[in-house]
Amino acid sequence: MRRSAFFLPTLKETPSEAQIASHRLMLRAGMVRQSAAGIYSWLPLGFKVLRKIEQIVREEQDAAGAQELLMPTIQSADIWRESERYDAYGKEMLRFKDRHDREMLYGPTNEELITQLFRDNVRSYRDLPKILYHIQWKFRDEVRPRFGVMRGREFLMKDSYSFDMDFEGAKRSYEAMFTAYLKTFKRMGLTAIPMQADSGAIGGNLTHEFHVLAETGESGVFYDIAYDDLAAKGEIDLAALNDLYAATDEKHVPGGPNVPPPERLREARGIEVGHIFYFGTKYSKAMNAMVQGKDGEPVFAEMGSYGIGVSRLVGAIIEAYHDDRGIKWPESVAPFKVGLINLKAGDALCDKTCDDIYAKLGAAGVEVLYDDRDDRAGVKFADMDLIGLPWQLIAGPKGLAQGVVELKNRATDEKVELSVDSALARLVG
Amino acid sequence: MRRSAFFLPTLKETPSEAQIASHRLMLRAGMVRQSAAGIYSWLPLGFKVLRKIEQIVREEQDAAGAQELLMPTIQSADIWRESERYDAYGKEMLRFKDRHDREMLYGPTNEELITQLFRDNVRSYRDLPKILYHIQWKFRDEVRPRFGVMRGREFLMKDSYSFDMDFEGAKRSYEAMFTAYLKTFKRMGLTAIPMQADSGAIGGNLTHEFHVLAETGESGVFYDIAYDDLAAKGEIDLAALNDLYAATDEKHVPGGPNVPPPERLREARGIEVGHIFYFGTKYSKAMNAMVQGKDGEPVFAEMGSYGIGVSRLVGAIIEAYHDDRGIKWPESVAPFKVGLINLKAGDALCDKTCDDIYAKLGAAGVEVLYDDRDDRAGVKFADMDLIGLPWQLIAGPKGLAQGVVELKNRATDEKVELSVDSALARLVG
Repeated sequence: MRRSAFFLPTLKETPSEAQIASHRLMLRAGMVRQSAAGIYSWLPLGFKVLRKIEQIVREEQDAAGAQELLMPTIQSADIWRESERYDAYGKEMLRFKDRHDREMLYGPTNEELITQLFRDNVRSYRDLPKILYHIQWKFRDEVRPRFGVMRGREFLMKDSYSFDMDFEGAKRSYEAMFTAYLKTFKRMGLTAIPMQADSGAIGGNLTHEFHVLAETGESGVFYDIAYDDLAAKGEIDLAALNDLYAATDEKHVPGGPNVPPPERLREARGIEVGHIFYFGTKYSKAMNAMVQGKDGEPVFAEMGSYGIGVSRLVGAIIEAYHDDRGIKWPESVAPFKVGLINLKAGDALCDKTCDDIYAKLGAAGVEVLYDDRDDRAGVKFADMDLIGLPWQLIAGPKGLAQGVVELKNRATDEKVELSVDSALARLVG
Repeated sequence: MRRSAFFLPTLKETPSEAQIASHRLMLRAGMVRQSAAGIYSWLPLGFKVLRKIEQIVREEQDAAGAQELLMPTIQSADIWRESERYDAYGKEMLRFKDRHDREMLYGPTNEELITQLFRDNVRSYRDLPKILYHIQWKFRDEVRPRFGVMRGREFLMKDSYSFDMDFEGAKRSYEAMFTAYLKTFKRMGLTAIPMQADSGAIGGNLTHEFHVLAETGESGVFYDIAYDDLAAKGEIDLAALNDLYAATDEKHVPGGPNVPPPERLREARGIEVGHIFYFGTKYSKAMNAMVQGKDGEPVFAEMGSYGIGVSRLVGAIIEAYHDDRGIKWPESVAPFKVGLINLKAGDALCDKTCDDIYAKLGAAGVEVLYDDRDDRAGVKFADMDLIGLPWQLIAGPKGLAQGVVELKNRATDEKVELSVDSALARLVG
């Protein structure tokens, strides 16, 4: 994509309404614009990141055997009355009547609708287990939406729902999602720590929040340093993880049971990006979702639900990867892999070399943002650092006279001068 | 995907509420389920088709130079007051108040929001032209939603918006979208006829509806048979197309001006799947969206908008491609390319051969739905015809004893017996 044609309105000034780094940087880098309180438009650069994150989430769900479908944003109030959550949900639920005066709502989550789909379409134990998921916009009418996409009102969530015949099956589904979540966050460059969350009446310890570590995280977290060893090994050892202590500051009791000794306890900041629950037959009983068991007797489905905040992750990744100058995208979610800077647009050799590099990288399937604007070098450097693409390839008249371009790694600031061919070889593959 | 694990609730009976073929077949083939009047959940099979159609639309938009972004579903009433459409829009607009009593709505279209984005972020003629688009769910509260996804209330639409400095630029944008639309529909196996639509006060003849031909189409269309020649040639000749007559029955006047003689006039049925408009400065003036011109003077942007009914296309394609037994998907939008039928699940040779075929096709990137269920052959044949995958590969004990499988083309019903290797060679690549 040529910068001169790209709809990328970067800002020099920091917008006064933004209190945290990711919000500031998403506005300044032209990724999003607020259209109403807590409601954002995703401009092309931000949308590309959102889609990459969504695709990683999708691939790991599919790999775990979950099947994608898509439920609508608007739901009937009727099914929420069946589960007895309609009155309980409160003001966060956006409610309205349609032109025929039927009570409707914008779905804040989908337990009711998926249970209805299951009840109406699944009959036999032979059809189980099933994990169904969708990636769909939700609306929660927060009192004080803030922190940009981190706590918006309209937000993109991946929510999965598992259906099993018994607790053992439900536990297997839970563990499959648990593992998929760790893989998902890892692919985005994030260290996610699963924390025991509130234990509901049923299911006990089968509920975890996943917090990614970021210095600017919203909540304090305490965890066993053995997590860092496991993360460094790159393995996902479910048994080992389950024995380790981890808790948010809300739940952490210094010196409490299971808390490791001070030399094994690490304190950090975290951002919640996922939450998984086993809730047994809560919804299947309330909504009468039964399948025929092997012995012919009807059985209420054992269920769980599993959420990932997809749009929130864009903010969380920026919180984890930025500096004073801007964003430092991990390659797996970067909107483009390479930012190509033409230091002197209009100069014949600069233009020809950059056009050639741009064409070759494009042909090799490498995504490039080519700053071909007639603007000062300082503006281009600052803009490219702000946007935060993993690699910057800088071509100017002085270097080209010597046959070299400069390759800069945004994360490390490491710069090397090398021939165009060597630079291309490094960036391709 | 193995049929035994796939969430694909096909129906033997035709649901009584469905009046047209695509609605009946989408319910019977387990593609969608209605959750409220005119509001559907897309089950995995239907969702796969929806995504393929969406991707074709996206690729042709990108190829035409349009840039994708994503605007939210919920909008503030304020911008609709600026354009003076808030009161005018009527009951089709779903309106509500948020918890702070602010008037909001579920976007039925996005002229206001994109104009606001443009106004707030684009300053100079150097940033033009721009075509911006998104693929997002819309809501229109139809009095009588019907025909399944063909006239739903919550529906997926691709809407593009062009911004130019003058009429000549706007006309170029219009023509780029016009051409992109013809390519888009052609890739889905559809013949789309552009019809002159209502001419608004401004823009005159720069508005077209695109109707795809289907025997069960909702409206009658009349067109010059030269369209068929152009379509057969596979060329998109904008000048030639613009001179040809085409009109829906609402606008057609037998023997009227420009109407070709009877021997050159064809009457058919059509389904509207796209609509493009040039509307000049209607919104930019109402919302004060100006950029600085070359001479330094501010200029109101010349705009156009361009819609494609993405979810509606699923129904339209089925209307164009089905028979008494079920759907006949064009390969470009088929949920899977191949349906593999194991005629005797449990038979060692059948299982081994099918498992092998399934693995090899999967490794070659061919999408396969493998009916591995322990069920009668008749059930499997009927189900596979209903679902309508382009190719059926049928393996049974008798044929395998002779070393052959059967390959059936769903569209033509042509069947051939051939070796497994020959069948694989035909399906790969």
